[in-house]
Amino acid sequence: MTESEFIATHRQELRRGTVVLACLLALREPGYGYALLDELAGAGVPVEANTLYPLLRRLESQGLLASEWDTSEARPRKFYRTSAQGAAVARQLQTEWDELTTALRQLDLDQGDNE
Amino acid sequence: MTESEFIATHRQELRRGTVVLACLLALREPGYGYALLDELAGAGVPVEANTLYPLLRRLESQGLLASEWDTSEARPRKFYRTSAQGAAVARQLQTEWDELTTALRQLDLDQGDNE
Repeated sequence: MTESEFIATHRQELRRGTVVLACLLALREPGYGYALLDELAGAGVPVEANTLYPLLRRLESQGLLASEWDTSEARPRKFYRTSAQGAAVARQLQTEWDELTTALRQLDLDQGDNE
Repeated sequence: MTESEFIATHRQELRRGTVVLACLLALREPGYGYALLDELAGAGVPVEANTLYPLLRRLESQGLLASEWDTSEARPRKFYRTSAQGAAVARQLQTEWDELTTALRQLDLDQGDNE
C-alpha cells in the first residue's frame, strides 16, 4: 500500500463515522435525499447515493428520521426530517466528536515538543 | 436497536477512525505497546489490546512506525516510534479531521436556526 493509498483508506474511515451525524444534523431542516447529497458534498462530507439512500431508510426504521411523501408533483418524492429522538442522538454524537477532537489535540500537543 | 445501543455503535464508529491517527501522534515519542494503551485511554481514545497490537504491527509493516527491541531487561520489549513518513501521514489525517470538524459545525449552524 503506497502512502497515498493509505491516506485515502484512512480518510475514508474518518469520514464514514461522520455520515450518520451529518445526516441527522442536516435533516433538522426537512429535505429530499437528492438535495441532501448536494448539501453534504457542499459541506465537505461527500457521500455516494448508494450509501446514502439505504442509510436514510435505516435511520427511519430506527426512529431517528421521519419521512413524508410530497405528492404535489407528478412524481411523488419522499422527504425526510430528523425526529426529536434523532436530534438527541445527534447531540450526543456531536459531544463524542468534540471529545475525540480534544483527545487528538492533546496527543498532538503532548508529543509535538519531542519531534 | 435501542437509542443507547445506537449511540454506542456510532460512538464506536467515530472512534475507530481516530485510532490510527492517535497512535501516529502519540508514538512520535517512542513507546511500548502497553504504555500506549494507557496513554490512549488517558487521552480519551480507549483501545483494546487485541485491537492495538495487530494495528501496531500493521503500521510498522507499512513503514509508518519503526520499532526496536529494548533488551536491557530480562524480558525483551519492543518499542515503537512514528517514522518520518508516519508523521507526514498523521499531519494529513489531522487536516482531514479538522476539515470534517468544520463541516459538521457548518451543518449544525446551517440547520440550527430552523429547529
